[in-house]
Amino acid sequence: MKKIAILGSTGSIGTQTLEVARNNGDLEIVSLAAGSNVKKLEEQIREFHPRTVAVWTEEKAKELRDAVKDLDVKIVSGMDGLIEVCTIPEAEIVVTAIVGMIGIVPTIAAMKAGKDIALANKETLVTAGHIIIPLAKETGVKILPVDSEHSAIFQCLNGETKGQLKKILLTASGGPFRGKKIEDLKNIQVEDALKHPNWAMGRKITIDSSTLVNKGLEMMEAKWLFGVEPKDIQIVVQPKSIIHSMVEFVDGAVIAQLGTPDMKLPIQYALYYPERRFLPGERLDFWKLTEITFEKPDMETFRGLKLAFDAAAASGSMPTVYNAANERAVAKFLDRKIAYLQIPEIIETCMGHHKVKENPSVEDILETEQAVYEFIESRW
Amino acid sequence: MKKIAILGSTGSIGTQTLEVARNNGDLEIVSLAAGSNVKKLEEQIREFHPRTVAVWTEEKAKELRDAVKDLDVKIVSGMDGLIEVCTIPEAEIVVTAIVGMIGIVPTIAAMKAGKDIALANKETLVTAGHIIIPLAKETGVKILPVDSEHSAIFQCLNGETKGQLKKILLTASGGPFRGKKIEDLKNIQVEDALKHPNWAMGRKITIDSSTLVNKGLEMMEAKWLFGVEPKDIQIVVQPKSIIHSMVEFVDGAVIAQLGTPDMKLPIQYALYYPERRFLPGERLDFWKLTEITFEKPDMETFRGLKLAFDAAAASGSMPTVYNAANERAVAKFLDRKIAYLQIPEIIETCMGHHKVKENPSVEDILETEQAVYEFIESRW
Repeated sequence: MKKIAILGSTGSIGTQTLEVARNNGDLEIVSLAAGSNVKKLEEQIREFHPRTVAVWTEEKAKELRDAVKDLDVKIVSGMDGLIEVCTIPEAEIVVTAIVGMIGIVPTIAAMKAGKDIALANKETLVTAGHIIIPLAKETGVKILPVDSEHSAIFQCLNGETKGQLKKILLTASGGPFRGKKIEDLKNIQVEDALKHPNWAMGRKITIDSSTLVNKGLEMMEAKWLFGVEPKDIQIVVQPKSIIHSMVEFVDGAVIAQLGTPDMKLPIQYALYYPERRFLPGERLDFWKLTEITFEKPDMETFRGLKLAFDAAAASGSMPTVYNAANERAVAKFLDRKIAYLQIPEIIETCMGHHKVKENPSVEDILETEQAVYEFIESRW
Repeated sequence: MKKIAILGSTGSIGTQTLEVARNNGDLEIVSLAAGSNVKKLEEQIREFHPRTVAVWTEEKAKELRDAVKDLDVKIVSGMDGLIEVCTIPEAEIVVTAIVGMIGIVPTIAAMKAGKDIALANKETLVTAGHIIIPLAKETGVKILPVDSEHSAIFQCLNGETKGQLKKILLTASGGPFRGKKIEDLKNIQVEDALKHPNWAMGRKITIDSSTLVNKGLEMMEAKWLFGVEPKDIQIVVQPKSIIHSMVEFVDGAVIAQLGTPDMKLPIQYALYYPERRFLPGERLDFWKLTEITFEKPDMETFRGLKLAFDAAAASGSMPTVYNAANERAVAKFLDRKIAYLQIPEIIETCMGHHKVKENPSVEDILETEQAVYEFIESRW
């Protein structure tokens, strides 16, 4: 039995991780954490019998304790609760499917406790890659990417020798507004931006896919995960999301990973790596597929992607500013407080106002985030 | 220095192997064999200084001895010469780029002498896979595919666990007559069939690509190399030859190898495996590539491919009949003695007249080949 802790168990990746556990007899869920969805957590507790479960507020914790008082489960709360869930002695691997910079501290705690990380929290590497990657080396824990693109790259590099990688070809669907120009994006409404052509995901990441900020964050993650410079990461738009990403080696050979858009594949791959297990579901049929098309991304219209390369080049605390500004701007857009095109505008303004701190500590990163939030509140 | 013997050094694969050696400072050519091109062999001897060189006839051997009498090189001939070239104590790896069943005996001799095989001779596995694969296990030598498709599959399987492979997706350009129907193929001339859309290759293999017999032979090779049943090998037509082949795993993930059509890549990969080396040449540019298209092969029109699956299913000596009949039919077509559509007709007739011998020995295989040749001479 492989013993698993899940941070963010009620979200899209969390529930699909539980589905993978349900399909396989040898995965045991030892602990769970979620924000506030007590009802869903109760269902998950009754089905998977974790020993420890965390919710964010003590108020919700009380509510959950009451709901499951007939069961032998410990309910905890706050950052201490999150850390308890992911450092629980029984866990071998922690799925970090929690959204936001709140994921960084528990991830570090889990690594220090010797747990492998199935990484789905983007902020961890984007903002603290310079801390996480050396820590993984130091502690000997594995960082196993759960994101479809990074899992694809990881699969393509399997069996290959480090140092023979020439570049990463990070594929992008282009989102629902591919082909549109700035003029066309002026009046985009929340409903339009939430229509992703290929993947069913959470609201924030769906907006990020439409602005290509998601691809920018993935580029920064790839930089840390695979030790490549941003100039050696080429974004390739491939609207059908059939190729999940590719790598090019020094000899010119390109290795690609393809599949139907099913997040359970990278989740299961991370949990069982290096083994592959049967996964129910549709298969690619190349006799019916007809074609795969490729385009160059339009970084003028989708300025959020261009800004990601700028933030990666500036390095230090700048990726934190990029991420925090985007996070807050997307929240405001979803609340209908700002227009769609203000998302990259806000990111750019925040980046312009920031003085880069080199090699920031976790405290510096969280302070930078807070400063960006305050700056945004004062301006928009 | 890695020490290399080349069988078929004056052909397409042979000369490209020498080009790879020329580009890398640490490959030493210890022996060469070729059919009859004394002039080219002399050039190769003067550039690469092999210790032993074989030509087929003693007459040509005398001619070559005379041409290089100023050099310290041993010139040998016949099957004994071929065997001497590929069992020379210095050689670590033998590139079997010789065409035809003549390659089987020397390949077996090289394996028994402990040499790794960079396999470019199709007939070896098609006709004697049941002997070669167990022999590789017994002698502990590596069989490293040089064919672009098999190298692609081999690269895709790198680092993966045996038993997790679900199927092979063997890609095919479809040749110069893709999309045509039987009616359109009636008056095909030699010149038409020699125009391959993507690859520059020898004449026989170019004709085989146009009839899809080449893909049929590759399917049979893949069966032996990767231990899969023919039903788990799907032929996917992909006209631009950008994807060199793919594999699907039990979890539904597909891994593909892509590249520009350059045989030096699989040759170099086989010689340095598992290392990759820089290779000069054009790279794929996905921003300009636009698209990759896929089709189902038309096995009614290209009956040669269908017959390969029949021959693989019949197994035993039947693949030898398929190969020998095709070889002789193509030679007759190139000599303008038969029409293009008679190639699959002759294969089918020969297969229909053959009584399968299970588990044939090398002698049985060579006798079967001879019987097919005689049958064809008596009929066409």
